[in-house]
Amino acid sequence: MKKSLLSLAVSFAVTCSGAALAQGDTASLEQRIADLEKRLEKTEQVAVDAEKQASAFEFHGYARSGLLINDDLNGASGTGPYMTAAGALGGAVGRLGIEDDNYVEVILDHNISQDDGSWSKYRVMIADSTETNNEWTADDSKLNVRQIFAELGGLDSFDGALAYASIWAGKRFDRDNFDIHFMDTDIVFLSGTGAGIYDVQFSEDWQSNFSIYGRDFGTIDSSSLEVENYIVTMNNYIGQWQLMLNAMTAADNEDRDQTASSPTKRAENGYHALLAYHGNNFYGGGEGFSKTGILVGQGLGAELKGIGSNGNLNEDAQAVRLFSYGVTRFADNWRIAPAFLGEFSKDRVKDGDEFLWATANVRLAQELTKNFEMVYEGSYQYMDLDNGTEQADGSFYKATIAPTFKLDTSGGFFQRPEIRFAASYVDWSEDLNNYSVSLDNDASTMGEGGEMIFALQMETWF
Amino acid sequence: MKKSLLSLAVSFAVTCSGAALAQGDTASLEQRIADLEKRLEKTEQVAVDAEKQASAFEFHGYARSGLLINDDLNGASGTGPYMTAAGALGGAVGRLGIEDDNYVEVILDHNISQDDGSWSKYRVMIADSTETNNEWTADDSKLNVRQIFAELGGLDSFDGALAYASIWAGKRFDRDNFDIHFMDTDIVFLSGTGAGIYDVQFSEDWQSNFSIYGRDFGTIDSSSLEVENYIVTMNNYIGQWQLMLNAMTAADNEDRDQTASSPTKRAENGYHALLAYHGNNFYGGGEGFSKTGILVGQGLGAELKGIGSNGNLNEDAQAVRLFSYGVTRFADNWRIAPAFLGEFSKDRVKDGDEFLWATANVRLAQELTKNFEMVYEGSYQYMDLDNGTEQADGSFYKATIAPTFKLDTSGGFFQRPEIRFAASYVDWSEDLNNYSVSLDNDASTMGEGGEMIFALQMETWF
Amino acid sequence: MKKSLLSLAVSFAVTCSGAALAQGDTASLEQRIADLEKRLEKTEQVAVDAEKQASAFEFHGYARSGLLINDDLNGASGTGPYMTAAGALGGAVGRLGIEDDNYVEVILDHNISQDDGSWSKYRVMIADSTETNNEWTADDSKLNVRQIFAELGGLDSFDGALAYASIWAGKRFDRDNFDIHFMDTDIVFLSGTGAGIYDVQFSEDWQSNFSIYGRDFGTIDSSSLEVENYIVTMNNYIGQWQLMLNAMTAADNEDRDQTASSPTKRAENGYHALLAYHGNNFYGGGEGFSKTGILVGQGLGAELKGIGSNGNLNEDAQAVRLFSYGVTRFADNWRIAPAFLGEFSKDRVKDGDEFLWATANVRLAQELTKNFEMVYEGSYQYMDLDNGTEQADGSFYKATIAPTFKLDTSGGFFQRPEIRFAASYVDWSEDLNNYSVSLDNDASTMGEGGEMIFALQMETWF
Repeated sequence: MKKSLLSLAVSFAVTCSGAALAQGDTASLEQRIADLEKRLEKTEQVAVDAEKQASAFEFHGYARSGLLINDDLNGASGTGPYMTAAGALGGAVGRLGIEDDNYVEVILDHNISQDDGSWSKYRVMIADSTETNNEWTADDSKLNVRQIFAELGGLDSFDGALAYASIWAGKRFDRDNFDIHFMDTDIVFLSGTGAGIYDVQFSEDWQSNFSIYGRDFGTIDSSSLEVENYIVTMNNYIGQWQLMLNAMTAADNEDRDQTASSPTKRAENGYHALLAYHGNNFYGGGEGFSKTGILVGQGLGAELKGIGSNGNLNEDAQAVRLFSYGVTRFADNWRIAPAFLGEFSKDRVKDGDEFLWATANVRLAQELTKNFEMVYEGSYQYMDLDNGTEQADGSFYKATIAPTFKLDTSGGFFQRPEIRFAASYVDWSEDLNNYSVSLDNDASTMGEGGEMIFALQMETWF
Repeated sequence: MKKSLLSLAVSFAVTCSGAALAQGDTASLEQRIADLEKRLEKTEQVAVDAEKQASAFEFHGYARSGLLINDDLNGASGTGPYMTAAGALGGAVGRLGIEDDNYVEVILDHNISQDDGSWSKYRVMIADSTETNNEWTADDSKLNVRQIFAELGGLDSFDGALAYASIWAGKRFDRDNFDIHFMDTDIVFLSGTGAGIYDVQFSEDWQSNFSIYGRDFGTIDSSSLEVENYIVTMNNYIGQWQLMLNAMTAADNEDRDQTASSPTKRAENGYHALLAYHGNNFYGGGEGFSKTGILVGQGLGAELKGIGSNGNLNEDAQAVRLFSYGVTRFADNWRIAPAFLGEFSKDRVKDGDEFLWATANVRLAQELTKNFEMVYEGSYQYMDLDNGTEQADGSFYKATIAPTFKLDTSGGFFQRPEIRFAASYVDWSEDLNNYSVSLDNDASTMGEGGEMIFALQMETWF
Repeated sequence: MKKSLLSLAVSFAVTCSGAALAQGDTASLEQRIADLEKRLEKTEQVAVDAEKQASAFEFHGYARSGLLINDDLNGASGTGPYMTAAGALGGAVGRLGIEDDNYVEVILDHNISQDDGSWSKYRVMIADSTETNNEWTADDSKLNVRQIFAELGGLDSFDGALAYASIWAGKRFDRDNFDIHFMDTDIVFLSGTGAGIYDVQFSEDWQSNFSIYGRDFGTIDSSSLEVENYIVTMNNYIGQWQLMLNAMTAADNEDRDQTASSPTKRAENGYHALLAYHGNNFYGGGEGFSKTGILVGQGLGAELKGIGSNGNLNEDAQAVRLFSYGVTRFADNWRIAPAFLGEFSKDRVKDGDEFLWATANVRLAQELTKNFEMVYEGSYQYMDLDNGTEQADGSFYKATIAPTFKLDTSGGFFQRPEIRFAASYVDWSEDLNNYSVSLDNDASTMGEGGEMIFALQMETWF
């Protein structure tokens, strides 16, 4: 018994040395866990700091750059979505493969985000546009600062209808601008220096934005007359509808010198309205989106896109513009994006002038591999233009085919960067040759049509 | 006994199966800990890398941008802290609500930090200033590079008095410049291209900085006379006292062409000194700070703020400037910042000219909510100006009220970003109407006073 | 026995309470581990996000800035590696201590990197070069955008020879450009706007790159003749050998106006070739590297460095250039970098012109401490220049000593930032005084030699 007790004790001792080992293990595990906790605490701090540092700064941008070659082996200067006579009126055509400028926007943001949910965003945008293919562009440089603004949101002091509101001041592109990418034209491009409030919530379905923008007409220097245009704007979003109303006033604008390009009395006031439907599918069916709407304007408001930016408009200038465009996928590897934009305007800068233009554009993409697609664009524009002195009417045609590389063709029309090669044929009615909307004697004209344009291009935004 | 031994063995077995279970647990815990250790090691690396990447780059900046509207509904060009006749002499007034320019500084830093404690900082600053409210500012653009420099510190090879020293070279704003923010005026603004050493420690309480700066007078091109001004500067910090001494020489400066704005012989040398007291409380009591001092200068040194930047000064030009300002909180939700700046100078650019100006400015802030405060500013400037040809004396007055939004009003006068609305009334003595310090015939003048100015503005720095 | 059994039971109980305790411990350990796992998961996410954010953006740059003072206490404008008459032909001399410009390149990259290994890089470069020492440089600003391009690689759709290939489009400096840093001269500097493909792998040892670049000659505006030069380029890397072939065509270049600086008929085509050996040691022995090669060109290809950038070259212009340079360490704390560059060219812009120049340069560095080294440079250039109207020949000499600070002198010749002081003596043969290669009447000339130049400079790249 003693023996067996001894053996038991021994086995017990053995077993319990196992248990003792486990206790030793436990202690060592505990130590390792404690070490881990300490290390993790530090790492959490480092990671959070790094994340904070990284997200306090944001780099955004847009760029297009490339080489255009025409069939004479010369550069294709003067081409682009605004190359037709109606371009001076905002009558864009399809852009694919014909943009010759090297255009770049560099956007640097500084963000602050506080524990109470309040935040600020500061943005500065530097932009440039040159046509030269050379790489030292100091002589052609247009480098300039297009945006400088600050925005505050999530403010403790805001509640009720303002609970989700943010306020801003500075120089900016309005947040609610939107565009037909395929024609490189904004539907509205409101910009300038001012202040405003976004996201005032009147009801669950009704949200409004209010802003004041200032713009300058003519040259700003101490010796010449300085005219400022003040634009008051209101945007209402009710469900999928947008109603934008703008009023503007530019004291002393009629006192500015009359010039060849502005022979009659300038307006001092203007009105502008936009009604748009933002569909979250493709005209009622299919994935994608579609947007349709109408813009009207009077006086200084008759510049329908760049609201308040044209100081040469007459008091009784009138304009109406229609647009509709959408994007969808219509087969496994095919996408389509039709677009329409048309405008009628009269009494713009000379009593009795009258302009009608309308563009129809279709872009198609055929996804061939994960990284390669063929993109096709057909563009047609009808113009009936009468600047009060000369008249011309006719049509513009463009057809483009563009083999395109990207990281993922399934990403759709708006995935970038893209590297593309393009061949375009552009032509127009002979009646339009050398016609210009401008009354200036040395205004650039459409020239003659019938040209092949080859392009090697990149485009990106992020 | 056998049974009880058996039961003991059983219970032992049971218990030990518990222990065995624990051992299995231990193994699994051990595994999980080992996994954690591996994952953490990786994450530590990722976090440290991310932190390193993030902190190698720094984005800093300053910006003000906004819209000014006067009571004629016109832009208020020509306004700003240097809008009075004394402004040309550096006689700033309170800036709140009257700055019309869109001014932006973009600062990009690249830092290297080594395990031995040594570090380098490279900085480039791009800046712009435009008056136009438009957003495409290529025609008005002043985009330029104001700073490019590198600094090295924590160097192994430095010890003794140099143990904490750093050296720099390039183009820069001197590190020791400081300003009266409320009047947008530096007390000293030393800048240019050169090299120097900071933080030489002669004793526990005595620290010195030494630099050489070069500046150019007149136009730099191969055909015209090039004159460079070399400034040797020394800054001493002894406790809360600062003594700065500057000497400068610009060979051939007296050979530059005489012009209407510089009719008499230019200086080729200059001396400049600053004595300042940097108080870490508000004039001996209360939280905040206060700074008081005197600047004197002779010849090229008679430009007291932008040291060595004025090449038109006469050999016997003399100037003395006094300043004092501070910031404190005088009630739960009230802050105050009084400031004084005054200068007497003579024989500046024409023998016998004589200028006296003095500005008193008070800014008050009343914190109403966490995000909203009312800011008030009153500014008064006395001028007695005689440019050797014409004489004028009188006063300038400004009163401003500015409802201001920010992330946290308790952050004080220097927390940014701010979005503010402001209404200012400015007026001055009739005697000053159309007076200019400059001898140029087409120099811009004060114009006539008595104007309301409304502002919508943002301002930030970070 | 009972007692002993009891004691055993007790001891057992005790022991097992130890085991029970261990079980409680186990549970708590398990809890702590589970907590750690949860926290780690979150931290991993934060760290990865931070890393992703940080590496999506890259900041790179180059900068040199500093103050030059000559022995008359004036600025040393006109100095630099291209200061000799042969400089206009690309005949650089040693740069150390004589570069007077403030030159800066700011490079911002946006990277996307996808899980399937595909990636994109977008790059924009803004650059400036000014001579003024002042800090507000708006009047002298050359700020411009030198690069805008996008690159795609790791594409799923690429395999075979293209498996490692990347494609690009936009405006850029070619990736394969390389330089003799010590003379601030590229061996080839191919740049412009275009598209290409890199890293086509024909065999293990043979890798090729193909690109098309466009460049503009003359002014780009609607009224003047626009001439574009299209350059097709191919680079082959076979082991350590590089063979580059370029062909170019510029339609209508012979129709551009003849000017004083281009009196005879311009070329419309050009050919250019480079053969180079990139040694990964110092001429067969010793650490470091060495590169040796030959360039030849005809017509528009006779501009051997900036390929296709000179539109004034004659049809039968011919040029051949030799180069060789290397870097090694020849003692514990001594480094040496010898360099040779020479060119013979004729019939460049005027029939019968003929130019020979050759530069030998040696830079030495003596590492005195971890942060301080003495750098020495000796430079010699022989010139025999005949522009078809005037002839001059002779030699240029430069000797420089430059005490230099950096973070780690053991980092070698290419570690930056550097802060350096330099004293240089430059002189040249009297025969070269006031000689210029250019046929323009107002071309700037070498002036007279024999000058000391003192410099305070920084230089960095990263």
